[in-house]
Amino acid sequence: MANSRKEQQIKSNEDTGFGTNPDNYGGRFINRDGSFNVKKEGLPFFQRFSLYHSMLNMPTWKFYGTLFSFYLIVNFIFACIYFLIGGTQFQGILATGQWGTFKEMFFFSTETFTTVGYGRVNPLGDTANSVAAIESMLGFLSFAIATGLLYGRFSKPKAFLFFSKEALISPYRDGSALMFRFAAYKDNHTLTNLEIKVNAALVYSDNGKQVFKFYDLDLERSHVESLPMNWTVVHPLTSTSPLFEYTAEDMKRTDLEIYVSVRAFDDVYSNIVQQRTSYTYQEILFDRKFVQMYRESDDGKTTIVQLDRLHEHKAVGRQV
Amino acid sequence: MANSRKEQQIKSNEDTGFGTNPDNYGGRFINRDGSFNVKKEGLPFFQRFSLYHSMLNMPTWKFYGTLFSFYLIVNFIFACIYFLIGGTQFQGILATGQWGTFKEMFFFSTETFTTVGYGRVNPLGDTANSVAAIESMLGFLSFAIATGLLYGRFSKPKAFLFFSKEALISPYRDGSALMFRFAAYKDNHTLTNLEIKVNAALVYSDNGKQVFKFYDLDLERSHVESLPMNWTVVHPLTSTSPLFEYTAEDMKRTDLEIYVSVRAFDDVYSNIVQQRTSYTYQEILFDRKFVQMYRESDDGKTTIVQLDRLHEHKAVGRQV
Amino acid sequence: MANSRKEQQIKSNEDTGFGTNPDNYGGRFINRDGSFNVKKEGLPFFQRFSLYHSMLNMPTWKFYGTLFSFYLIVNFIFACIYFLIGGTQFQGILATGQWGTFKEMFFFSTETFTTVGYGRVNPLGDTANSVAAIESMLGFLSFAIATGLLYGRFSKPKAFLFFSKEALISPYRDGSALMFRFAAYKDNHTLTNLEIKVNAALVYSDNGKQVFKFYDLDLERSHVESLPMNWTVVHPLTSTSPLFEYTAEDMKRTDLEIYVSVRAFDDVYSNIVQQRTSYTYQEILFDRKFVQMYRESDDGKTTIVQLDRLHEHKAVGRQV
Amino acid sequence: MANSRKEQQIKSNEDTGFGTNPDNYGGRFINRDGSFNVKKEGLPFFQRFSLYHSMLNMPTWKFYGTLFSFYLIVNFIFACIYFLIGGTQFQGILATGQWGTFKEMFFFSTETFTTVGYGRVNPLGDTANSVAAIESMLGFLSFAIATGLLYGRFSKPKAFLFFSKEALISPYRDGSALMFRFAAYKDNHTLTNLEIKVNAALVYSDNGKQVFKFYDLDLERSHVESLPMNWTVVHPLTSTSPLFEYTAEDMKRTDLEIYVSVRAFDDVYSNIVQQRTSYTYQEILFDRKFVQMYRESDDGKTTIVQLDRLHEHKAVGRQV
Repeated sequence: MANSRKEQQIKSNEDTGFGTNPDNYGGRFINRDGSFNVKKEGLPFFQRFSLYHSMLNMPTWKFYGTLFSFYLIVNFIFACIYFLIGGTQFQGILATGQWGTFKEMFFFSTETFTTVGYGRVNPLGDTANSVAAIESMLGFLSFAIATGLLYGRFSKPKAFLFFSKEALISPYRDGSALMFRFAAYKDNHTLTNLEIKVNAALVYSDNGKQVFKFYDLDLERSHVESLPMNWTVVHPLTSTSPLFEYTAEDMKRTDLEIYVSVRAFDDVYSNIVQQRTSYTYQEILFDRKFVQMYRESDDGKTTIVQLDRLHEHKAVGRQV
Repeated sequence: MANSRKEQQIKSNEDTGFGTNPDNYGGRFINRDGSFNVKKEGLPFFQRFSLYHSMLNMPTWKFYGTLFSFYLIVNFIFACIYFLIGGTQFQGILATGQWGTFKEMFFFSTETFTTVGYGRVNPLGDTANSVAAIESMLGFLSFAIATGLLYGRFSKPKAFLFFSKEALISPYRDGSALMFRFAAYKDNHTLTNLEIKVNAALVYSDNGKQVFKFYDLDLERSHVESLPMNWTVVHPLTSTSPLFEYTAEDMKRTDLEIYVSVRAFDDVYSNIVQQRTSYTYQEILFDRKFVQMYRESDDGKTTIVQLDRLHEHKAVGRQV
Repeated sequence: MANSRKEQQIKSNEDTGFGTNPDNYGGRFINRDGSFNVKKEGLPFFQRFSLYHSMLNMPTWKFYGTLFSFYLIVNFIFACIYFLIGGTQFQGILATGQWGTFKEMFFFSTETFTTVGYGRVNPLGDTANSVAAIESMLGFLSFAIATGLLYGRFSKPKAFLFFSKEALISPYRDGSALMFRFAAYKDNHTLTNLEIKVNAALVYSDNGKQVFKFYDLDLERSHVESLPMNWTVVHPLTSTSPLFEYTAEDMKRTDLEIYVSVRAFDDVYSNIVQQRTSYTYQEILFDRKFVQMYRESDDGKTTIVQLDRLHEHKAVGRQV
Repeated sequence: MANSRKEQQIKSNEDTGFGTNPDNYGGRFINRDGSFNVKKEGLPFFQRFSLYHSMLNMPTWKFYGTLFSFYLIVNFIFACIYFLIGGTQFQGILATGQWGTFKEMFFFSTETFTTVGYGRVNPLGDTANSVAAIESMLGFLSFAIATGLLYGRFSKPKAFLFFSKEALISPYRDGSALMFRFAAYKDNHTLTNLEIKVNAALVYSDNGKQVFKFYDLDLERSHVESLPMNWTVVHPLTSTSPLFEYTAEDMKRTDLEIYVSVRAFDDVYSNIVQQRTSYTYQEILFDRKFVQMYRESDDGKTTIVQLDRLHEHKAVGRQV
């Protein structure tokens, strides 16, 4: 087959870090959200687990849920301790009965932990005083930790890029090209000095043996100075492309996956941001092209990027 | 016309990220403050909106106004909740009447949110206690968020550069050059390793069709090691310049815009900072040159940069 | 001896910063944890000591222990001050006797420092009030410092790499190669753009004089784009290697130490991270090779990295 | 004179950012602490002033003094406001007389600002309550600002380098070389990837006109991979050096100043750090060389850097 001959002529890229053994290929390599489809095992959970990393990367609702649960649990534990110490070591308890006393202890704990300290209920005995001193110190530290986590989440550099759902094989000059596009979707967010790398992963047969290869795809442009609007990335399907004359069947046969990695400088954070995504062969459409996604404002003074049209494309005549 | 012939010979820069279709050109591309004259639409506001970005970039008075409004609103909401729970669940209320009780509830809320907790008014009932526990937790977190935002604002790397209001066509060696200048205006602020890029955007007619092109402008010097004083950026108008022999009318006809981008290393933040600006043809003056903007101190031991003279220039004889 | 002749032909690397005088060689240069085996003296402790650096680098238990000790000591000092001021300057003391009063003072101090302020005991006299005002301010600042330290610890960029305990001399193509491997062991942690430098330090005799030399070791690959799994670093023992045809005895005779330095870009922190380690000749094993350390997940959809097999290797036939 | 002829042959460095006009030369360009000897004027103080920059760069005692003064002033202002509102709007005031009431108001203010809130004295009236709500909010924010400033100070990347007080003209190979040295003086602080740039600034006469020129000085080594010990920077005084065959008198006549700039990667902060210094002709000594500044530890296992010997040098025979 012509393709597999060519596949062996074009220099593959050995430096992707994915290895080249198809035995270890389980499903796609890069998930659509840009994370690697790889798990780790063989170390105890607490060595692999990083509290800060996890708290930084979890969804917002889960983050605040975790903080709130922590707050409830800590106060419950201290309520139990105060209850065991006994109400007689406290001044100002008005509730009566076991359950009433426990509730007073619980709310005394919340007042202590958050350092509100209304003071109606306050510790008299040495044990109660000591535990309260420890709890307020703990509240103090928890506050500091929460501040650090919140700041870490807020200030975490992120590229905030939307990629088109599909990559297209579109007409390009005399032939065709693989294209996809993306845009930064946040207001007040400017990326500059963008660089993009696109790799193709192919599995093909070499004398009956499965071989897994990566190829750098040449781009019409791999660097732009800024991204005020959208960027359509173009890989021309010329004879130097590992995907030259590929049909949809070829793509399926070789289990094609296109890896995309964008690096840019973020003006707001003054930091480098990075985002990855991938397109599998099912997400590559033939003979379509993207439609324009910007327009002039009504007063003619400003360009408006239409983010809802990012994924829009239309059919074009079959390319030879 | 000689100019448009030449415009097509000098290699244009396709990598600015602005696209080359004049249809999408609405007014200037880069505002004087360096932001892009581009808006986004087509995504819900909350997806485009980034609280952290907005809070980081808003003016100081607006930032503190937002914090204060948030404080008032949160306390108003909690005051309403406590009021609905009813004054009987609290101890120590001295005010009488509905309005008096509401005010006591409002100030109890502020004491709880800020964790002051004087304690004259304090919650007795379970509902009041629970809401107060939640409010103090919320205050706790708001504090953490405010700390993060304030630190983010403080530590946001910024170049703090002033650019001259106009760019000038000044005499330079045997011919002339496009010049503008800038200086860092903050005390105790040292920029090193500065790099500058200058682009020209021109619209001209190619066989009756409007074409939009970008050109890199060659600079006498595009890098300096440090910026203790001011820097006059010089683009010599030689035959290799896309602006060679341009008149003011040529600049107007081609809707000339000069984009300026400065990157530097900031010694205080140990970070890279970036600032952009642009000059439109209206902001380019012919046959003028900048006046010197530094002087020796009275004791002769220190150089003094005169920032108020940054925009000063004077007429020079017409250049050939 | 063939080796020492060759050692003098291959260009050594003078830029390691270690110097080349064997007189200053005390034990290994780089400890296994990547720190330099170097101490400093001749400056007062407080000039060499950096509180922030130390608090950032100390183990977690020691860090929290330090904070807790600080809390105890500060409160003890303030308790003494309040005790000297005397109980009469306070309202609400219920305890009787010297020891009881001291304890009340101690717990009043903890309430003030953490800003809990229950208020049963509260200062009446001017001196007591002033000291309490200072202590609450101090608590305020300590809180800020603790927050900064905790955030600094959390957000400290770290590579989190595990290196194989031993480096191996394994079969490689027609000859053999020096190999070791490493993997990132944290979940949700992605390193990209990894670069590795490997140096060999050798002491050999040049006309009876001890000479200390560093060599860059050529690697089969010194850069990978990402590290989803593990990376086996390979230095082929060809004729251009300073270790070509080295035996275990040669390694011992020349006191061989291999320095490894990895730099990478960390996606979570958007920062550059760095980790070092070293292998002395005792940690280099001959005629062994690493076993595969990844497998497919049971559903065949994900690759699983087996971190517990990082150090596993097996014997291979003697290489010529 | 032979020197000035040569001075004009060696290519000068125009990119230092210092300009080349001797008229603006007031004393040395770079102070010994690395700051530029340049002042700014012509903008209102508050535009040139950056609170964050100033608070970050001021000495520790001044920083804490500023915080404490701010605390006193804020509380004094609020005490005045509460005093004007009048003691009748408060509950729990025990002091009598104007002065006593003012003091109670002052300490109530400190309790509110730091959010301690003992609660003996607490606001009853609407005005008092409102002002207290504002003050506690202000305390809240001040806390956040203090946290940000403290963290900013702590985490500010700094190179912590000590440079030798003098640069020396020492024997080097067959000729001589200009040498100085430096070391990182903090424990637990590792710099890697160090780069150094050395410039010479000379004023000389060109046909009776004063000309100011900068030269890059070639170094034996301008990059080292790490700095565990000290680094002696060597500029060989060969015929390609602008300082070749310079005598002490030549140096004085040309008002020689050597600018030194070191950039490095800091392992603790994972950030780039930079430090500058300069040597004027008075600080350059002839015919001396540095003494060794490290020794083996007593157990022979560790190298010890002797920071107190950094500035030590000894006479050597006159070099030809």
